[in-house]
Amino acid sequence: MKPKLLSGDRITGKLHLGHYAGSLKKRVELQHSYDCYVLLADVQALTTHYENPEIVSENLRNVAMDYLACGIDPSLSTLFIQSMIPEIAELTVYFSMFVTVNSLRHNPTIKSEAAERGYKQMYYGFLGYPVSQAADIAICKAELIPVGEDQLPHIEQTRKIIRRFHQLYAPIFPEPQALISETPRLMGLDGNSKMSKGLNNAILLDSTRDEVNDNIQRAKTDPARIQKHDPGHPEICTVFSYYQAFSPELTNEIYSSCTQGKIGCKDCKKTIANQINVLLEPMRERRDIYSRNAKQVDEILIAGTEHARTTAKETMQEVRDAMKINYFA
Amino acid sequence: MKPKLLSGDRITGKLHLGHYAGSLKKRVELQHSYDCYVLLADVQALTTHYENPEIVSENLRNVAMDYLACGIDPSLSTLFIQSMIPEIAELTVYFSMFVTVNSLRHNPTIKSEAAERGYKQMYYGFLGYPVSQAADIAICKAELIPVGEDQLPHIEQTRKIIRRFHQLYAPIFPEPQALISETPRLMGLDGNSKMSKGLNNAILLDSTRDEVNDNIQRAKTDPARIQKHDPGHPEICTVFSYYQAFSPELTNEIYSSCTQGKIGCKDCKKTIANQINVLLEPMRERRDIYSRNAKQVDEILIAGTEHARTTAKETMQEVRDAMKINYFA
Ligand code: SF4
Ligand code: SF4
Repeated sequence: MKPKLLSGDRITGKLHLGHYAGSLKKRVELQHSYDCYVLLADVQALTTHYENPEIVSENLRNVAMDYLACGIDPSLSTLFIQSMIPEIAELTVYFSMFVTVNSLRHNPTIKSEAAERGYKQMYYGFLGYPVSQAADIAICKAELIPVGEDQLPHIEQTRKIIRRFHQLYAPIFPEPQALISETPRLMGLDGNSKMSKGLNNAILLDSTRDEVNDNIQRAKTDPARIQKHDPGHPEICTVFSYYQAFSPELTNEIYSSCTQGKIGCKDCKKTIANQINVLLEPMRERRDIYSRNAKQVDEILIAGTEHARTTAKETMQEVRDAMKINYFA
Repeated sequence: MKPKLLSGDRITGKLHLGHYAGSLKKRVELQHSYDCYVLLADVQALTTHYENPEIVSENLRNVAMDYLACGIDPSLSTLFIQSMIPEIAELTVYFSMFVTVNSLRHNPTIKSEAAERGYKQMYYGFLGYPVSQAADIAICKAELIPVGEDQLPHIEQTRKIIRRFHQLYAPIFPEPQALISETPRLMGLDGNSKMSKGLNNAILLDSTRDEVNDNIQRAKTDPARIQKHDPGHPEICTVFSYYQAFSPELTNEIYSSCTQGKIGCKDCKKTIANQINVLLEPMRERRDIYSRNAKQVDEILIAGTEHARTTAKETMQEVRDAMKINYFA
């Protein structure tokens, strides 16, 4: 039996190159070594989008399609929908009993996210989302969680919650480990340190060739370069960061050409746009096949969710046994 | 169709005369006018007893038996177990998204209960229990909730949560009304203003004749009465309060006899002990029948829980429709 690995995304919009570089690429590779569970986190998305739930429902199948397009293979990975696993909500309730409000308030990620969102009021569900994340992880007994550095406090909180459960009742969960991704965040087209659909600086995974070309054309470069022979500073150039992410084999050459004023930004952009299109081409092909058979995507989601739910139900039986509330067992 | 009424108890111990006088008696009567749901609130009990879950599991059937003994009729009332309705946890999660932490912190009942329990730390689950109560009520679309005055803030919070849900999504729930009980709290045997198993000042509903007699003998009376002809003060006497609760037809007579020093406390106690035994006798008979067939109690709980779960599942379908997350409907 391969160890279980849980990953996932909040369903708030289509996925983009930032998701691919930061996590999806790695997840596609990990499919072969782990029993992968991929969570379509619609409930967690609703926690911050409860006023616009249509954002979640409109994007559920988009995200599923993005997963399948970039190579998440339903025969290797279990794609499942959070809101269709009521056992996650149940386990969240049990975990909530012994987590203090203060430990949540002091969670640095909660703090900074609340600040980022400009929350004047803290919502009860938002405050508790590390508890539901712990339940996501525990319900499928995941052992490995690929995350960015900023998510480490959540994994630590999950480990604490699980240890406390074990201490109170019985040791039924693995203690999950973070698998820290070394990939730095992908810059946005506008030079922002983060590519994000909300900031309108993203290249979506479902972009056409022309969309990629057009988007790269508007990418922010070194403002010091006005003419081709002006020496450039690739380290502050968005386009160069895309070379680093998607064509590492070309970085040395581009670096010299740019710093020595031997390449124009236009040509430099054409080359990376091409490279990105080479990367997206097999995704387009897979997407095409699934697009022609939309029912198949639903079937994959339903089957994955059923599979995850079986696991979740088994886990909840163990939870009930441990807590001595399996009254009719 | 009769309107739905939800009542219930936290499963933390056997029920006693205080429960009967304060609520059970009324609930037995209400069975004929309402479609009654009776919640065995094991999850809510665990919120404060998570360190000793055996208290909950050991008492689940005791409480069920107390209900049946005192006349809750499974053909009129749906007895159901909270932890076996995962839909309550699900709905709690959705409600949690739009309830602010501050509105919970400022709930006067939460405040005073936390103080009563001597909590140094606020636990996330405890802070949120008005949200789960709202989910208990909403999941079975209850219209009427019999409560004591102290529970009014919870009902008000439930109404607010339901109104907010309606405003955000769609009007699918009735706005529940509190049915305030006029019964004052029953005093404990020790003269404490509250009868409570934890204070060891309670007469349990499953007491034998002798236990009732012995307990009443140790009940606190007017300390000014030393001899039979000492004039007494019934208004400060525990025993007199039991006359008021269980034999109102005798209060005038006892009041005169006591204030005029015409009755001894011993005789006065004998009479009320007798009256209480008359009240408990039919409960003992029903209890006896069920005791001889323990399986029947389980069957009643299982059937009630299944019935409640059907309702809960239907409600959650409506919730999903309203929130537009009924993806495959
Ligand atoms: S040549 Fe390339 S790396 Fe250099 S500034 Fe222009 S786009 Fe950036
Ligand atoms: S006579 Fe009865 S009412 Fe009066 S003090 Fe004694 S027990 Fe109480």
